[in-house]
Amino acid sequence: MHAIGVDIGGTKIAAGVVDEHGNILAQTRIATVADDPASIDASIAAVCKELSQEYTIGAIGLAAAGFCSPDRSSVQFAPNITWRDYPIAANVRELIGTDIPIVVENDANAAGWAEFQFGAARHVSNMLTLTVGTGLGGAIVIDGQLVRGGFGVGAEVGHMRVVPNGHLCGCGHEGCWEQYSSGSALVREARAAAIKEPAVAASLIERAGGDVSQINGPIVTAAAQDGDELSLHLLSELGRWIGEGAASVAALLDPEIIVLGGGVAAAGELLLKPAREAFLEALPARGHRAEAEFAIAQMGNSAGIVGAADLARR
Amino acid sequence: MHAIGVDIGGTKIAAGVVDEHGNILAQTRIATVADDPASIDASIAAVCKELSQEYTIGAIGLAAAGFCSPDRSSVQFAPNITWRDYPIAANVRELIGTDIPIVVENDANAAGWAEFQFGAARHVSNMLTLTVGTGLGGAIVIDGQLVRGGFGVGAEVGHMRVVPNGHLCGCGHEGCWEQYSSGSALVREARAAAIKEPAVAASLIERAGGDVSQINGPIVTAAAQDGDELSLHLLSELGRWIGEGAASVAALLDPEIIVLGGGVAAAGELLLKPAREAFLEALPARGHRAEAEFAIAQMGNSAGIVGAADLARR
Amino acid sequence: MHAIGVDIGGTKIAAGVVDEHGNILAQTRIATVADDPASIDASIAAVCKELSQEYTIGAIGLAAAGFCSPDRSSVQFAPNITWRDYPIAANVRELIGTDIPIVVENDANAAGWAEFQFGAARHVSNMLTLTVGTGLGGAIVIDGQLVRGGFGVGAEVGHMRVVPNGHLCGCGHEGCWEQYSSGSALVREARAAAIKEPAVAASLIERAGGDVSQINGPIVTAAAQDGDELSLHLLSELGRWIGEGAASVAALLDPEIIVLGGGVAAAGELLLKPAREAFLEALPARGHRAEAEFAIAQMGNSAGIVGAADLARR
Amino acid sequence: MHAIGVDIGGTKIAAGVVDEHGNILAQTRIATVADDPASIDASIAAVCKELSQEYTIGAIGLAAAGFCSPDRSSVQFAPNITWRDYPIAANVRELIGTDIPIVVENDANAAGWAEFQFGAARHVSNMLTLTVGTGLGGAIVIDGQLVRGGFGVGAEVGHMRVVPNGHLCGCGHEGCWEQYSSGSALVREARAAAIKEPAVAASLIERAGGDVSQINGPIVTAAAQDGDELSLHLLSELGRWIGEGAASVAALLDPEIIVLGGGVAAAGELLLKPAREAFLEALPARGHRAEAEFAIAQMGNSAGIVGAADLARR
Repeated sequence: MHAIGVDIGGTKIAAGVVDEHGNILAQTRIATVADDPASIDASIAAVCKELSQEYTIGAIGLAAAGFCSPDRSSVQFAPNITWRDYPIAANVRELIGTDIPIVVENDANAAGWAEFQFGAARHVSNMLTLTVGTGLGGAIVIDGQLVRGGFGVGAEVGHMRVVPNGHLCGCGHEGCWEQYSSGSALVREARAAAIKEPAVAASLIERAGGDVSQINGPIVTAAAQDGDELSLHLLSELGRWIGEGAASVAALLDPEIIVLGGGVAAAGELLLKPAREAFLEALPARGHRAEAEFAIAQMGNSAGIVGAADLARR
Repeated sequence: MHAIGVDIGGTKIAAGVVDEHGNILAQTRIATVADDPASIDASIAAVCKELSQEYTIGAIGLAAAGFCSPDRSSVQFAPNITWRDYPIAANVRELIGTDIPIVVENDANAAGWAEFQFGAARHVSNMLTLTVGTGLGGAIVIDGQLVRGGFGVGAEVGHMRVVPNGHLCGCGHEGCWEQYSSGSALVREARAAAIKEPAVAASLIERAGGDVSQINGPIVTAAAQDGDELSLHLLSELGRWIGEGAASVAALLDPEIIVLGGGVAAAGELLLKPAREAFLEALPARGHRAEAEFAIAQMGNSAGIVGAADLARR
Repeated sequence: MHAIGVDIGGTKIAAGVVDEHGNILAQTRIATVADDPASIDASIAAVCKELSQEYTIGAIGLAAAGFCSPDRSSVQFAPNITWRDYPIAANVRELIGTDIPIVVENDANAAGWAEFQFGAARHVSNMLTLTVGTGLGGAIVIDGQLVRGGFGVGAEVGHMRVVPNGHLCGCGHEGCWEQYSSGSALVREARAAAIKEPAVAASLIERAGGDVSQINGPIVTAAAQDGDELSLHLLSELGRWIGEGAASVAALLDPEIIVLGGGVAAAGELLLKPAREAFLEALPARGHRAEAEFAIAQMGNSAGIVGAADLARR
Repeated sequence: MHAIGVDIGGTKIAAGVVDEHGNILAQTRIATVADDPASIDASIAAVCKELSQEYTIGAIGLAAAGFCSPDRSSVQFAPNITWRDYPIAANVRELIGTDIPIVVENDANAAGWAEFQFGAARHVSNMLTLTVGTGLGGAIVIDGQLVRGGFGVGAEVGHMRVVPNGHLCGCGHEGCWEQYSSGSALVREARAAAIKEPAVAASLIERAGGDVSQINGPIVTAAAQDGDELSLHLLSELGRWIGEGAASVAALLDPEIIVLGGGVAAAGELLLKPAREAFLEALPARGHRAEAEFAIAQMGNSAGIVGAADLARR
């Protein structure tokens, strides 16, 4: 069965027709207005109609950056779009005029599911995906089932607390994992190093045109790839926090694989190696258990489309 | 279908016939020798034969304090009994001479499952059980499925790290949750208070016959119930760590209920109230989500028998 | 002997003639330009000349917000004024044309010294002053001697680390005491509470005109004085961090008194009480030692003038 | 002037005649009974009389492992000898029948003073000594003056808190510096590594005869000197905690030198190098200040005798 996956972002909607092997057969996109849910509904309907002209579609999956209801029909809350208990599936259904299944899923969960079905985790039944971008997102699969949470708010991995009284998080709490394991954390530490020890950070400062506030994640990664010691150290510390946090998750969930995605994962083995080492060092009962593998995500930017489509037809 | 549940401890085996409503129809027990797995096999077989005389048994569930294989046939490792990749189900089958299903489950998982099916969590689909005893054990149910882990080592909740460089755990790591949320933690803090501030701890010291090393969990709980301020504070701090750790679990798994069991749960609301408050205070995205309830476990000491039996017939 | 004390700020210079009892006999002030050290020299000279007309002056003390050389002649570095190894005493001497002693002291040290000689600590020989303002400054007196440090950089108490991997400090390090014990910390926590739990923070939000970003220290203090529970809790937590950090200082220095000054000290006993309790709770070897008292600073805004003057004539 | 220094331990008393250059001209020792202060007084008197036969003595200094009164006449409290507000100087004076000065000093302070006057710190005016033994002791000199504390309890450096909710200390508090920077910490971490990762700790386990509980500090140091990676890592981590804690002390006191003594200092540069690096990495305002040097103590086991003698004649 072919299904449509729709990835709804704050500035654009991307949609595609996905076959049962996770291939995207056709794709389209359209700009959106973040503070106008009704126009987003209309845009979703438009792209779905467009994609339905050449393909027979059996289901539609919507990937939304927000908390979704457990019955997969509405968005309860979103930080960047003004959805509040918003019945997005019903709205889209009415606009399209169809009776095929339409479901909404959290976008990180959808992307993780694509990884689980067709990507780096397709060979296992238990997976943790960590999306290391501006923040730290994630998806959890247990015994082949996606963990959505009892109230639809599961897999908010970035807000597991790793340091009591630690760095303030945008969520209002302190010490959240994403304050130590994200691109923002990498940049914060790089800039702090530039303040504390300008000589040591000379290469980073130079790459940022002399302006510490211009240091960003890609600059650190590029410097690390060129062998800059500070940048290698910063990625290593980032990896350490990722690995140590993943060991806490493993104490709870014992995944077979931990998949790293997101922009920072572009650092590849420079991030993966310290993450893996710290994970093993911190893993409870090591030596008396099998050890999860670490891998880089494979599905790229269309993971949300593929995952949402695939979840919709189940 | 009736099933037998067998709870295998270091010093004794308890077994019972369990009906489909979680009732124990008959029960028996026998002493064991911890360092002789073969004699444990024989004891298990003996109690199963005994219980099978009056009841028709459809399945046998063994609850073992160790890591169980994902196929539920063997114990991979146990801290207190010398099981190492030990095919306990096959051994027992051969001794009994039966072809009904025989499965082995982690004892904390079995007990948690009893709570989920017949006890404090029987009305929900997503549960976290915390067994606050000498250590901190637990069980996790997601969408009605018990989480055993990809390698059979899931739900080792006590080893989620909550304080980097924190208290040393018996597992060799530092800062494990059980070092802050267990009877041992309660006793450690009570004794430390007695060292730091004998005057403040006068009531506890007196209850312990003047010997700080004799302060134990029941003494603290009893003193708290009599209104001793220090003991109330100690239980409140214990509850705080339980609640804050549970909030980290909720970030990952979004349970509908958190069930507290184990000896320390005898403190009831004196523990539950601070746990609940700290949980809500630390819960990510509070106000944008439903909030898990807190409850005391209801199944008592036979939870392992009931849960193992019930899991065996599924 | 009368001495002049000059308190050099980023936007203005305040100076006064101080007698041997710490009284200010005459006072004047003048605006400054932060990035022009030469004009600051000239302004200092001008106020000194003005004050010298009616009084016979035996010494001049300059209080500067920066690191001063151990010989008290120059400012090695300042965060807000562009002094770099700047021979301020010699410059001022040349402009005035005098041979009386002219010395420069760190402004927090000067203010603390005033407290020690004439204020809250005048009855002891060992003192810790904590200035809880935007940051956390301090002064230390041991056996009647001001601690300037081996290289002139002592008593930077706000940068003692209290939480590994804790909040980022402006200095580039993490977990500095001032990130937990300052007006900025108070405001950060108040705003975070408003994000996490708007209902609980309703009174604070209302006092800030509905704008969370307008919550500030005086608002929290005022709300606490009106009995607002959250604000009382926030001051109590601030006090706890002050007290616990002071206990670490006491492990090193065993002061007889801890004096709290700065804007936040306006909260008085609402801050002092939790600070004192946390200090005693965390004090090593309590019960086997005398316990330092806590007090609010008494010298007010002219402490820098008085202290600089008094230090200059020694 | 010649003075006698007496180092009073739990099992023996060592005493010597010390000249003004810190040389020991004559030495003697005698066994003691820890729980009999009167017999200790008598033993001290005996060794002093013995040493006074050949030398003209101008003062007697007693080094005691306890809290000494600010007037240096009595021991207020000691953990290992049953001194409680004990007038040791007066007692010894009466037994000897002399009117030369007799003073009592904390033993760590006495040893540190020897280092300051005649050893590794003789060229500076501001010093921090860290005695890394079973625990973490220390001595502080500021502007050439020994810091005894306002109540005689200063320089208990090991009880500065470095990790909130960290390892339990014998003092009843949590997270004390000595729980991270002592021989006990080194051994705890080595044993934990042997539990967590026996393969990685193979060399240590072998050196301990296969018994993890026999791993001790000298074994780790010897293994590190032979290039054992784990042991090098353990010393490096120990050094890191020493250095980071010392940076906090430097924020307060700005010493010119940090002297490491005690049994663990035998590791020499293997400890000193990571300590120095971590210190500089954590030092506030680095780049805008002079940097303290690190050195190994030079006075050896007789530091207490030399320091007590020298302090007595001042």
